[in-house]
Amino acid sequence: MFGTGSWGTAFAMILTEAGTRTTLWGRREEIVKAIDRDQENPDYLPGVKLPAALRATTDPAEALDGADFAVLAVPSQTLRQNLAAWVPHLPPDSVLVSLMKGIELGTAKRMSEVIREVAGVPEERVAVISGPNLAGEIVQRQPAATVVACVDEKVAERLQEACHVPPWFRPYTNTDVVGVELGGAVKNVIALAVGVAAGMGLGDNVRAMLMTRGLAEISRLGAALGADPHTFSGLAGMGDLVATCSSPLSRNRTFGENLGRGMSLAEVVAKTKQTAEGVKSCESVLELARRHGVEMPITEVVVGVVHEGLSPSEAATLLMSRAPKPERYGV
Amino acid sequence: MFGTGSWGTAFAMILTEAGTRTTLWGRREEIVKAIDRDQENPDYLPGVKLPAALRATTDPAEALDGADFAVLAVPSQTLRQNLAAWVPHLPPDSVLVSLMKGIELGTAKRMSEVIREVAGVPEERVAVISGPNLAGEIVQRQPAATVVACVDEKVAERLQEACHVPPWFRPYTNTDVVGVELGGAVKNVIALAVGVAAGMGLGDNVRAMLMTRGLAEISRLGAALGADPHTFSGLAGMGDLVATCSSPLSRNRTFGENLGRGMSLAEVVAKTKQTAEGVKSCESVLELARRHGVEMPITEVVVGVVHEGLSPSEAATLLMSRAPKPERYGV
Repeated sequence: MFGTGSWGTAFAMILTEAGTRTTLWGRREEIVKAIDRDQENPDYLPGVKLPAALRATTDPAEALDGADFAVLAVPSQTLRQNLAAWVPHLPPDSVLVSLMKGIELGTAKRMSEVIREVAGVPEERVAVISGPNLAGEIVQRQPAATVVACVDEKVAERLQEACHVPPWFRPYTNTDVVGVELGGAVKNVIALAVGVAAGMGLGDNVRAMLMTRGLAEISRLGAALGADPHTFSGLAGMGDLVATCSSPLSRNRTFGENLGRGMSLAEVVAKTKQTAEGVKSCESVLELARRHGVEMPITEVVVGVVHEGLSPSEAATLLMSRAPKPERYGV
Repeated sequence: MFGTGSWGTAFAMILTEAGTRTTLWGRREEIVKAIDRDQENPDYLPGVKLPAALRATTDPAEALDGADFAVLAVPSQTLRQNLAAWVPHLPPDSVLVSLMKGIELGTAKRMSEVIREVAGVPEERVAVISGPNLAGEIVQRQPAATVVACVDEKVAERLQEACHVPPWFRPYTNTDVVGVELGGAVKNVIALAVGVAAGMGLGDNVRAMLMTRGLAEISRLGAALGADPHTFSGLAGMGDLVATCSSPLSRNRTFGENLGRGMSLAEVVAKTKQTAEGVKSCESVLELARRHGVEMPITEVVVGVVHEGLSPSEAATLLMSRAPKPERYGV
């Protein structure tokens, strides 16, 4: 298990409580020590008691020793470089599992694609996990469900078992890796848009429009990439989008809200502790859409606001002055 | 235009500003006078200046004189009785438009079915309007979109024109009357469930699960009744559900929240000013589901909590202990 951010740590907690022996790798000695010795991650989950059986280490070989699953929860844009260093320690037949919700800059590749490329493994050895899983609520023992996807259903079922803690945490299986992964990555972009609108003082009608039209543009991109359209109506699509766009705990939404209130990009970046994935991924998502000839008007204005100096009110005018279309097109 | 509640009044405002001559009928002399003379609805939209051109009357014949559209916005359970008295005044060829979001108790009929039955008109003369349209935000001039549905697309387009106020209010047409109507009616039931969960102190992950699985059960019912499944991914399905379940202004959500906090049904009813449609409609929705052999587990526990003395925590246990199923079934 790689990555000691809030979701990585929470998922290590889930695995451990599901009875799966888990060792969490972290880069920073002091966090690793706090987790291993004090059962606490003071940086990202202060005050949360982690299970006594959870181990932590700075040594990737130790983290991977005998592992059936190598779970990856590092910032998306650092995955390629990080994973390259860990590949030599991967046990044969181990399955690589992505918890990450981003698209790589430059290549516009999904995380599972980067994993296959860097680790040189077939798609049956790569799984993704995504759903409405705000870590802060999960560690409070609130019930949650997620989607575990692998093209090989048997692998998905093994992973499901490894992280199932009834009635606290319920994983559903799916074989649509592309859909589950896109849902998780693109919702961060829509959450930025929803945040900007909230920061501008707009209410729930506008938010509902952005989320509905946002899910429609995710589905159009998914259709172009071969995803199953039903995935987007499920927990990894609508579910994750709804949780992220509603929550005051969402980093992407909060980032957008600050922009909508009139702060500059530099000011917002300075204020943001953990990575807001959508800020980087929005450009890769747009690149992917352009390559496949898919219209993503909300993603376009998010890239404009975040990276090209478009003002929130100009963005709103751009979206609202689009020519009317049928509600459903391009799917 | 019949009904001086908040959405009825707001929609009369939209029609008037779209250039459609509008007369609003109300039962109570003092509200009608306030709207007609002072351009204000002090009961439901205090402080909002209504357009000078909007007329109001207590006389249904006056309200319907020369009308192309008879727009109905009365409480769902009073429609049958009210409409019977208005039918004699309907101009020939006028179209009856439902803004109502309920299912009739006893008959389990949708509002458009009640309208056809009572007015004796063919389905081409009945339209429904539904979408993420919280009246309180619309009257603040925030942008909003809605769905205008009629089996006859030409009629839907005429109605679209009659209520289009760019860039403030944007109606989309649809021919799926059943889907648009079900989305509006059943979302109130899901909003009650979401409110109960919020009242119990549960957060955004649980809310997202209830909304996602809630939309799935609306879609299953829709499939059984012949609706187009895509309608539920649109503004009248997901859009309206998201707006209602997020908004502190939603009556159904607030009603559920009070129940979740431990108030009794009688206490909550006493506290609620306008009708929370879902409280009555949940029984009709469940009746409809049973007739068509559709499983609606969230609706079932809502009926239990609202009408059968089931406690919120028993309801949560019931939902969480269901046998796991594939994410998508029965559609």
